[in-house]
Amino acid sequence: MNPPRTDARRHHDPDVRGFASDNYAGVHPEVLAALALAGGGHQVAYGEDAYTEHLQHVIRSHFGATAEAFPVFNGTGANVVALQAVTDRWGAVICAESAHINVDEGGAPERVGGMKLLTVPTPDGKLTPELIDRQAYGWEDEHRAMPQVVSIAQATELGTVYTPDEIRAICEHAHAHGMKVHVDGSRLANAAATLNVPMRTFTNGVGVDLLSLGGTKNGAMFGEAVVVIDQDAVRHMRHLRKLSMQLASKMRFVSVQLEALLARDLWLRNARHANEMARRLAEGVRAVHGVEILHEVQANAVFARLPHDVSERLQKRFRFYFWDEAAGDVRWMCAYDTTEDDVDTFVAALKEEMAR
Amino acid sequence: MNPPRTDARRHHDPDVRGFASDNYAGVHPEVLAALALAGGGHQVAYGEDAYTEHLQHVIRSHFGATAEAFPVFNGTGANVVALQAVTDRWGAVICAESAHINVDEGGAPERVGGMKLLTVPTPDGKLTPELIDRQAYGWEDEHRAMPQVVSIAQATELGTVYTPDEIRAICEHAHAHGMKVHVDGSRLANAAATLNVPMRTFTNGVGVDLLSLGGTKNGAMFGEAVVVIDQDAVRHMRHLRKLSMQLASKMRFVSVQLEALLARDLWLRNARHANEMARRLAEGVRAVHGVEILHEVQANAVFARLPHDVSERLQKRFRFYFWDEAAGDVRWMCAYDTTEDDVDTFVAALKEEMAR
Amino acid sequence: MNPPRTDARRHHDPDVRGFASDNYAGVHPEVLAALALAGGGHQVAYGEDAYTEHLQHVIRSHFGATAEAFPVFNGTGANVVALQAVTDRWGAVICAESAHINVDEGGAPERVGGMKLLTVPTPDGKLTPELIDRQAYGWEDEHRAMPQVVSIAQATELGTVYTPDEIRAICEHAHAHGMKVHVDGSRLANAAATLNVPMRTFTNGVGVDLLSLGGTKNGAMFGEAVVVIDQDAVRHMRHLRKLSMQLASKMRFVSVQLEALLARDLWLRNARHANEMARRLAEGVRAVHGVEILHEVQANAVFARLPHDVSERLQKRFRFYFWDEAAGDVRWMCAYDTTEDDVDTFVAALKEEMAR
Amino acid sequence: MNPPRTDARRHHDPDVRGFASDNYAGVHPEVLAALALAGGGHQVAYGEDAYTEHLQHVIRSHFGATAEAFPVFNGTGANVVALQAVTDRWGAVICAESAHINVDEGGAPERVGGMKLLTVPTPDGKLTPELIDRQAYGWEDEHRAMPQVVSIAQATELGTVYTPDEIRAICEHAHAHGMKVHVDGSRLANAAATLNVPMRTFTNGVGVDLLSLGGTKNGAMFGEAVVVIDQDAVRHMRHLRKLSMQLASKMRFVSVQLEALLARDLWLRNARHANEMARRLAEGVRAVHGVEILHEVQANAVFARLPHDVSERLQKRFRFYFWDEAAGDVRWMCAYDTTEDDVDTFVAALKEEMAR
Repeated sequence: MNPPRTDARRHHDPDVRGFASDNYAGVHPEVLAALALAGGGHQVAYGEDAYTEHLQHVIRSHFGATAEAFPVFNGTGANVVALQAVTDRWGAVICAESAHINVDEGGAPERVGGMKLLTVPTPDGKLTPELIDRQAYGWEDEHRAMPQVVSIAQATELGTVYTPDEIRAICEHAHAHGMKVHVDGSRLANAAATLNVPMRTFTNGVGVDLLSLGGTKNGAMFGEAVVVIDQDAVRHMRHLRKLSMQLASKMRFVSVQLEALLARDLWLRNARHANEMARRLAEGVRAVHGVEILHEVQANAVFARLPHDVSERLQKRFRFYFWDEAAGDVRWMCAYDTTEDDVDTFVAALKEEMAR
Repeated sequence: MNPPRTDARRHHDPDVRGFASDNYAGVHPEVLAALALAGGGHQVAYGEDAYTEHLQHVIRSHFGATAEAFPVFNGTGANVVALQAVTDRWGAVICAESAHINVDEGGAPERVGGMKLLTVPTPDGKLTPELIDRQAYGWEDEHRAMPQVVSIAQATELGTVYTPDEIRAICEHAHAHGMKVHVDGSRLANAAATLNVPMRTFTNGVGVDLLSLGGTKNGAMFGEAVVVIDQDAVRHMRHLRKLSMQLASKMRFVSVQLEALLARDLWLRNARHANEMARRLAEGVRAVHGVEILHEVQANAVFARLPHDVSERLQKRFRFYFWDEAAGDVRWMCAYDTTEDDVDTFVAALKEEMAR
Repeated sequence: MNPPRTDARRHHDPDVRGFASDNYAGVHPEVLAALALAGGGHQVAYGEDAYTEHLQHVIRSHFGATAEAFPVFNGTGANVVALQAVTDRWGAVICAESAHINVDEGGAPERVGGMKLLTVPTPDGKLTPELIDRQAYGWEDEHRAMPQVVSIAQATELGTVYTPDEIRAICEHAHAHGMKVHVDGSRLANAAATLNVPMRTFTNGVGVDLLSLGGTKNGAMFGEAVVVIDQDAVRHMRHLRKLSMQLASKMRFVSVQLEALLARDLWLRNARHANEMARRLAEGVRAVHGVEILHEVQANAVFARLPHDVSERLQKRFRFYFWDEAAGDVRWMCAYDTTEDDVDTFVAALKEEMAR
Repeated sequence: MNPPRTDARRHHDPDVRGFASDNYAGVHPEVLAALALAGGGHQVAYGEDAYTEHLQHVIRSHFGATAEAFPVFNGTGANVVALQAVTDRWGAVICAESAHINVDEGGAPERVGGMKLLTVPTPDGKLTPELIDRQAYGWEDEHRAMPQVVSIAQATELGTVYTPDEIRAICEHAHAHGMKVHVDGSRLANAAATLNVPMRTFTNGVGVDLLSLGGTKNGAMFGEAVVVIDQDAVRHMRHLRKLSMQLASKMRFVSVQLEALLARDLWLRNARHANEMARRLAEGVRAVHGVEILHEVQANAVFARLPHDVSERLQKRFRFYFWDEAAGDVRWMCAYDTTEDDVDTFVAALKEEMAR
């Protein structure tokens, strides 16, 4: 069979993979096949298509009968749309200092949503009721931005994972103070794989009000969704998504990707594999003298501390990022397509560079 | 050959097409093939990939040596990123009252960019130096939002097309007042097809400073680009794109679609076909007694006035939108995949309903 | 008695007055005396003082038992705080094209409040249900900023005044569509003086939900108030005022000025006088051949059309502003301290310049 | 002589003073006298008046030949206007975690200015080059809000004062990184009084680019100014002030207050007195067994730790605020009008309550 014609050319080597980011991976073949399925003919734009409608069934099978998905383009978009939905003009968001919304979104929550982030330093990226209390006060004080929502990431930016009970405690605490709970779930699948429970067990099952559900890092080409669980917590989500410039005209192509991931178990296969590769990487790294693993490896991230010159030499062979350059901390991410061989080759290279 | 496995299912009939919107169309097969090409292996995220690099060559071949493309997710995003780049905190945008940025973006320019739109009624969606002057004043007056950019659409929301000379006159006028010129080019290809000139002839060639280049309506799955022509007019585009939540992590999949469209002539083939179908539709409609064509059909849109009840009956058979319901005005759009048979069937149905 | 010592000096001639703006006037002596009364000792800051508490009684005597005043610094601040209170993140404001919020606030509604203004051209600055309908639609359409409030000015920017019935009709129409009604009352006193009715007759009495109540143009040194009539229409006004940077620390000095104006009849005396001077001015001007009065003179503004060179010569003797320079339209404002002699001198000068 | 007539009444006891806030104080009699001077006749509105013009001379006598004052209404307004002037849409502000802009402005910097605050915990409210470095990085990283300005307070929220050399070091460090330096000087006079040097010695003299100059806490009724020292650092300040709703129509009444304070030495007399009273208070408190003074008393604030029940009993007699209620920390402020007797009475009451 001839490949379909295209004027575009391949500009990269599809057999090269690294450990810089799970965003470096491409699209999973089953997702690509789904995109082809959805491709021809006309469908109503802006979300009134059959794929988005069907996605709601899939989402409810995961997150309960009240759940509704609002597909968006990317993770920052999902977070900022979701947080706008549960804050007023005077509202603030309590989050970990290390949260993606605080350090990695270019100020979009403040600029697009006009939100104040009330941050708390954490040892491992995880909030607790006690840590939340460092910022949870002053609701009556007009001089203070009003805490209206607690935003946690599952898994966290540091590759750690909350237990369902930990999230339940946060939800109870937040709700007791009249605050909502948002989960940044760009790696929700990885957390479910680690905990070996359905996603509902640590979201709607324990009181989460709404979440950002990741697709891109789980094997999609692009696309995430805001999943609203407590419908009373929000209003006019469609307007919020549109004015936040996150409304896809040909939405079927976001929805069908999420369907491909979530309809059966592709989401879980992908996440399990990435997590497994991270554990393999961590084990390999632990065996290398002089390299310290920094956080518990509970998802698909490995944080390590090693001599700065070793990192620099290794970066000439594999692209990856410093997390805290002064301290010598680096982050290595595994993706759904990371192979055992990739891991072993990388560990071998690390050993080599440590030995020089 | 077995089709690749996917857990997603087809939920629509790929042989059904209508005239509601060029956003109802799917992805062009050549674009889909390009996406498959770009799919495997790891590529640096957020725009440092080989596809985005290559796209710059393609863009420069169309828009000149100074041009640079910043791929984004959608048209509203492209417009708001572009307009932020050429306005200060105190800036305003002069545009037609009918402009997409004014009527169809949910207030995103105001809410995300904090911009004031200074609108001018137009007979046909097109600004002129004289019409611009209705809002071009008061640069020194702090009580007035400062006009800093003129934004025109090519083709316009009303399906009309500026000649290169008309845009040149606007650019000269705007520049003489210290204002920049932005082109909302979500249908730039359609305008080029109509004018039968390269896109540069009515953009960089006549003084346009930056533009929103459409991909979605031209056959892409999703994806547009801000194309900066005058690099001195802007700063820190990457930061603006990120904070506007328009930065795709797996950007290769936006860039390769634009490459597929623009590398040779797919963009033009698609646009020519859509325009031709609109002309065919307009001709067919003109032959139906009692239906009036409202604007010159210069791109892929046909605006018509017909009895309200006829529209309503026709809408039961084909989805399309009222443009001005009180007046009985409707809009019919043709897409790259509209067929002659689609047009003829629709015209026949219109005739039928008019005859009842 | 010696005047109190101050290191400041007088830099102006307190006997010179003109017709450029009612903001050019100083502070009324009775207001200054009130400020002195409130001056010594400590009072709780940020609105918990005895003057602000007492002001509530005064406000309720004018605007009914549900009314509550939120003193702010200036008119733009009052408008933007009030409009934020009755719009969501996705909201829009229907107003006259000539409205102060649209043309004279430097884009503050858009920039501070993220609002979209949906403007309607009017012949005389006044909206009607029919004119409102030009923008009152599309509540379900996420592509359109959602109309949530109608904002009218009483008196208008063009010096015209709504009758109570006209405002009642607007309120009924707006409420029927689920919209609130805001009155920009920077010259509310002038309207009351013209109509010869209490302010309540055309505000809370006919359904207005909240208003901006002017002090500055009525003889105060500075200071306005948002007056909320329908308490259910708003939430957390104090937070909105603070985050909009309109919360005065020594609020007693705003409140006591409003008390001085509103406790008895100073507000009305000042407004009546200004209106009377405007009528005198209009009569004088009408007698000058070649000068046309443009709008009905219903408050303290006179709009006139006269030869451009005459205006320019006259501007060398008296400062005032063109309203539409191309058309030769100018605006002359009377203030609470304008004298009959001021008016007669100005009219005589106008005659002279017309005769040259 | 009869007092001037007013319909307002005195609602408070002008002989009662406390230690809750320097904003509880009223207007200094010399400032009130200045307001009366400026009162009659017409003056051009919005800053083109003779008082604002004269204020520029006064400001330049303090802050050098390049300085320019932009009078505004309040401190939050001054800070947010100033910080907008030195940040782009993608900019961020490095400040102490305890900074007023971070904890006490209701999120106005984020909401009105769309800024991201990058905060650093400090022991005493003061930043250092080393502390600044905790947030000074990532200028090229679009995922990070770009640090463009360091904002320090002089005196700080904790009543501490930077030496001129400390500010010089911050300016050199910030400038070396391409960042500007802003000083929140709502209590700049108190710092000058403490350091016993002119204000220029620790502002323009050591490299500060712009500052918020306080009037209200120094004896004004209301009114502050943004003072721009490096004119190249900013553009269109007047537009920024207007769109931030900080433009006073009758600006003469802001300017004349600042003139009254700054023309000779009222600013210094007021600040010195407030500082002296704070020292007297601190000395008195130190003599009370069981009460701990928390920070160095370098301006007009005294922070103390004492048993919670004592604070509560004392608060029934004098209004003041907890600073950290859990820790038992309170804040006592002295004002320009605090008397020795006020202090001694308060210390005596504290002793009594401690003894119960």
